[in-house]
Amino acid sequence: MRLDHVGIAVHSIDETARLYAEAFGLRVTERYATPSAGVRLAFIPAGGVDLELLEPAGDGPVSTFLASHGPGLHHLAFRVPDIHRAIAEAVNAGCRAVDAAPRPGARGHLIAFLHPASAGGVLIEFVQAGHP
Amino acid sequence: MRLDHVGIAVHSIDETARLYAEAFGLRVTERYATPSAGVRLAFIPAGGVDLELLEPAGDGPVSTFLASHGPGLHHLAFRVPDIHRAIAEAVNAGCRAVDAAPRPGARGHLIAFLHPASAGGVLIEFVQAGHP
Repeated sequence: MRLDHVGIAVHSIDETARLYAEAFGLRVTERYATPSAGVRLAFIPAGGVDLELLEPAGDGPVSTFLASHGPGLHHLAFRVPDIHRAIAEAVNAGCRAVDAAPRPGARGHLIAFLHPASAGGVLIEFVQAGHP
Repeated sequence: MRLDHVGIAVHSIDETARLYAEAFGLRVTERYATPSAGVRLAFIPAGGVDLELLEPAGDGPVSTFLASHGPGLHHLAFRVPDIHRAIAEAVNAGCRAVDAAPRPGARGHLIAFLHPASAGGVLIEFVQAGHP
């Protein structure tokens, strides 16, 4: 299990992309819009791990997060070879799954989340490459 | 510039280390106590990037963070070849430095932080390997 990306909730992908480019020399390389999930995404490679900018596209968990926390660090995503097994092992260790089953995410990946209250206050995502 | 580690504020390094080992198979490999900074640290390698657990050791920024936010994601640290230049470029782009000058951090590194309000809501740390 290795870190795949760090999710960051932002009001504006464009504004944040400009900041990361000017301040850190880091550039957005991929953008996705998934209005069904109420979110627009942009990925910024940062040396083997990506920063994933999440901007609300209508109502959804990201707009709720921004309303209560403001912009900032949102979640950690771990790349796993077998997402069903990763969920089962986390649940065995006392974590609670947000998703009853993995679901399609950006980049053609399968994803699933764990409740932060059950994982040391951190929203954890599992990512498995490709669809089964 | 690449991601070096993700800081996570925790009430107990021991409890969180147990959770990450049991739930994710990820293990603490290094521990540091820097009571002068009011913090105990533990590093968990997660594939090229580390998770840095921060537990309060007396009063300090980590105990303040825990009191107001509870445990959770705390900061992003970027590894840079020249920390003075990294700070200057971030400040030029509109970021505000927390530290007037870089200071010694864990692992013999030089570190400096940027104010989250000036960096999209994220507390950003720069890390330069070794002391100059």
